[in-house]
Amino acid sequence: MSTIFTKIINGEIPSYTIAEDENFIAFLDAMPLVKGHTLVVPKKEVDLIFDLESDDYKNLWGFTQEVAKKIKKAIPCARVGIAVVGLEVPHAHIHLIPLNKMEDMNFRNERLKLSNEEYTEIQNSIINS
Amino acid sequence: MSTIFTKIINGEIPSYTIAEDENFIAFLDAMPLVKGHTLVVPKKEVDLIFDLESDDYKNLWGFTQEVAKKIKKAIPCARVGIAVVGLEVPHAHIHLIPLNKMEDMNFRNERLKLSNEEYTEIQNSIINS
Repeated sequence: MSTIFTKIINGEIPSYTIAEDENFIAFLDAMPLVKGHTLVVPKKEVDLIFDLESDDYKNLWGFTQEVAKKIKKAIPCARVGIAVVGLEVPHAHIHLIPLNKMEDMNFRNERLKLSNEEYTEIQNSIINS
Repeated sequence: MSTIFTKIINGEIPSYTIAEDENFIAFLDAMPLVKGHTLVVPKKEVDLIFDLESDDYKNLWGFTQEVAKKIKKAIPCARVGIAVVGLEVPHAHIHLIPLNKMEDMNFRNERLKLSNEEYTEIQNSIINS
């Protein structure tokens, strides 16, 4: 049984992809806390991020650094925060969240409802930043 | 003006250190959300984690992986979560938080008040795990 992220990676579920290479993918979160909230996911289906082999793990963070720099350029924010919780989907994933205040990273906050046009605009602004 | 973390690194402020090498240090958070809540900090005083030079940045995450594995062994939890917010102290730092539920990572939660004996017990259990 594939995780929802593997279905996104395989193109079975559409997503607003920001960046992708052989091993990793970044796409906009479907339930964003703020505009530009992005998930970075290793294509290898591993539950716990710390169980990734050391090189894969470091390269995942390297990929994340590049994505975060693009988000910071595209989305007005004080900084890009990081969260790894992983109790919802058993496939390691890193949340990148543009932050202006501590409260922007509260996962209990109501999620934004964005139109396809808004998602596409955010996607393009990050890709082209 | 040194940050509070640089003062900890220099030994001017005491801390319950878990691990340390030439470039990085991990110590118990003084305002823990849960037992075992740890901060990982680069000794280089950089505000934004993504501004670290690529190798330093990847090595910081490598160091963090080792610390997280020790925490996971020592502290009963479903997994060790990660948070980087950084709006409080302008010196990059990674929160490692033993999680059993999503809510354990809510920074608005009341912080634990632990005795020196409890801190020392947690510190030793992680170091010796």
